Amino acid sequence: MHEAGIISLLINLVVILLGAKLFGELAERLGQPAVLGELLAGVLLGLGLFPSFRPDDAVLGLMAELGVLLLLFETGIHSDLEELLAAGPKSLAVACVGVAAPFVLGFGLMEALGYSGVQSVFIGAAMTATSIGITARVLADLGRLEAVEAKIILGAAVIDDIIGIIILSAVEGMAHSGAFSWLSIARTTMLAAGFFGLALWLGPMVSRTLVTVAKRMQVRGILIVSSIIFAFSMALFAQLLGTALIVGAFTAGMLLAATDKREDIDGRLKPIADIFMPIFFVMVGAKVDLSAYNPLVPGNVPMLGLAITIIALAVAGKIVSGWAAWGGGLNRLGIGAGMVPRGEVGLIFAQVGLAAGAIDSSLYSAVVGMVVATTFVAPVMLKRLFR
Amino acid sequence: MHEAGIISLLINLVVILLGAKLFGELAERLGQPAVLGELLAGVLLGLGLFPSFRPDDAVLGLMAELGVLLLLFETGIHSDLEELLAAGPKSLAVACVGVAAPFVLGFGLMEALGYSGVQSVFIGAAMTATSIGITARVLADLGRLEAVEAKIILGAAVIDDIIGIIILSAVEGMAHSGAFSWLSIARTTMLAAGFFGLALWLGPMVSRTLVTVAKRMQVRGILIVSSIIFAFSMALFAQLLGTALIVGAFTAGMLLAATDKREDIDGRLKPIADIFMPIFFVMVGAKVDLSAYNPLVPGNVPMLGLAITIIALAVAGKIVSGWAAWGGGLNRLGIGAGMVPRGEVGLIFAQVGLAAGAIDSSLYSAVVGMVVATTFVAPVMLKRLFR
Repeated sequence: MHEAGIISLLINLVVILLGAKLFGELAERLGQPAVLGELLAGVLLGLGLFPSFRPDDAVLGLMAELGVLLLLFETGIHSDLEELLAAGPKSLAVACVGVAAPFVLGFGLMEALGYSGVQSVFIGAAMTATSIGITARVLADLGRLEAVEAKIILGAAVIDDIIGIIILSAVEGMAHSGAFSWLSIARTTMLAAGFFGLALWLGPMVSRTLVTVAKRMQVRGILIVSSIIFAFSMALFAQLLGTALIVGAFTAGMLLAATDKREDIDGRLKPIADIFMPIFFVMVGAKVDLSAYNPLVPGNVPMLGLAITIIALAVAGKIVSGWAAWGGGLNRLGIGAGMVPRGEVGLIFAQVGLAAGAIDSSLYSAVVGMVVATTFVAPVMLKRLFR
Repeated sequence: MHEAGIISLLINLVVILLGAKLFGELAERLGQPAVLGELLAGVLLGLGLFPSFRPDDAVLGLMAELGVLLLLFETGIHSDLEELLAAGPKSLAVACVGVAAPFVLGFGLMEALGYSGVQSVFIGAAMTATSIGITARVLADLGRLEAVEAKIILGAAVIDDIIGIIILSAVEGMAHSGAFSWLSIARTTMLAAGFFGLALWLGPMVSRTLVTVAKRMQVRGILIVSSIIFAFSMALFAQLLGTALIVGAFTAGMLLAATDKREDIDGRLKPIADIFMPIFFVMVGAKVDLSAYNPLVPGNVPMLGLAITIIALAVAGKIVSGWAAWGGGLNRLGIGAGMVPRGEVGLIFAQVGLAAGAIDSSLYSAVVGMVVATTFVAPVMLKRLFR
């Protein structure tokens, strides 16, 4: 019991959770989403303030990976398939333009600057996925969740999440093979789409059976434990089929969202996610090399210029998507602004790219900078456009 | 993301949680407590059924240690200080006899058989703590929770838990120094008692402040995250003062039990404990060497004889405690039987002793056998005595 392992793990968990919540609270008080505070806490810890904390700690790394699986599982539970279908063709159009435009802009920029195909695809892909959480929270705070624009945005953000995750598994496969090939992208996209298809076809039966069995069992905690078992098994199954673990976790959540135990599972998952998710965001922040942003270091200037250009393109690419919605009287600029914030999925891209060696720490810092900047900018824009 | 580490961790977690819940359910259907099923699942996994699972896996070991801290934290939340005081002097008398008698019997047996002082104290100590969970569950199932005997038993079991934890930290200190000395036992007992005293004196202020601050904060999951931070910090503080991590976690729970957020914290802690606790019990089971119980192996016969003697003394020592309660018309045999089941705390003793090298795998198997046997025997006796 008294081994050094558990002591340093406890110290690190206390420091991570304390930092995440203090800075998360601070961020919310300043009108920003809490995730920004958690990232900032990570950046500060990454500077080496606590000797027991190392950004490359293996156990914390594994707990962070469980955290991202739980995050995607929870996102899945909140992404109702029916809601998604009801959101309609306008959302689909906005989502497609909102994915295509930033990807083309980012990819084009990197290619033009002479980066490799893998790096260009990665940066383009990291610019695609909207963070539904941040937009939903801001619209809710403004009391505008019932507006037509809000429904289009939220529907588009859900579709966008799914497209983003398919792209991620395509990009992830590519990052591991190290080679950029349209064939490999097509192949992994097909695999991810195939996994989704298979899951949506057979999954409802499996998830309904799971809930029925769990209801008949009487042992303590059976509902949450079987849900977690389902999420982890689906993640492993997705991985076995050649797609990403997180695609499986997300799909598991979407399947359980269609059962009558959705609310119960969501309620019980929340405290678990509350503990694990901050570990992920803090570890993401801790890997940011703050010195890379120092403009006084001459070598950093190109990266800073690149980061600012990426941010501008990331905002422009999503703003454009608002004009994909047809019909009169729509606040198209508002719809576009609602699609701007990149969040969790963008950070996962950065994380995966760095771990696979597809992007270096300078490009990693640029991607994290893009996520942070779009997340900061969106609430300010939305407040002006929807007031 | 696709590293071998996370894949094998996910496989192991799925196997552990699935095994724990299937065998836990089976145990409950057979009228036994679920923890027996979880131990059995661990024993089976320990046989090497799944190649990715190793009983000495470092990451699973750390997660199991978090599990035991959460278990003790939860036990603390359920151990209301006021309930404990209301249970009165009869409970105290039963608890004291119920700790002293098994300890003296176990210690005497081991000394008589020529075992070392450390080993004798360990076996005696492992026989002391009643599992409140199992007794409470059986009495509730029988609809006798309101009986006078039930109140005496539950009060005694709570006091017993605290005495057990103080003994544990004394024994743990001894196990690490490797030497048996009354001075060292007295010292660690004083330290644990001192920690409790300090915690009970200053703690209520700290826990009330914590809850007040948490109420004012608005960031997601603040209540459960700050409770976990409090539990882990108290564990580290206890460790720093020379007592055990689990003493701190238990005390943190008891302090939060006295706040007006007790129910909320308990509700949010439950799903987290649901995931982590089975990992602990499965890992405890996995370390049991089943071949040690095979009576056909001649070398095992002495251990089996020892285990059976320990079980008999463990039952007798608690049965005796029933007669410590005074007053007419009491079902003293029933009270004694209610004190028989050893559970989590007994397993923690076994775990600590094995990890510190104070007991070998043969004595470990004997202790786990004692916990399992008393847990099996008690519900059967209680059903007869309280029908």
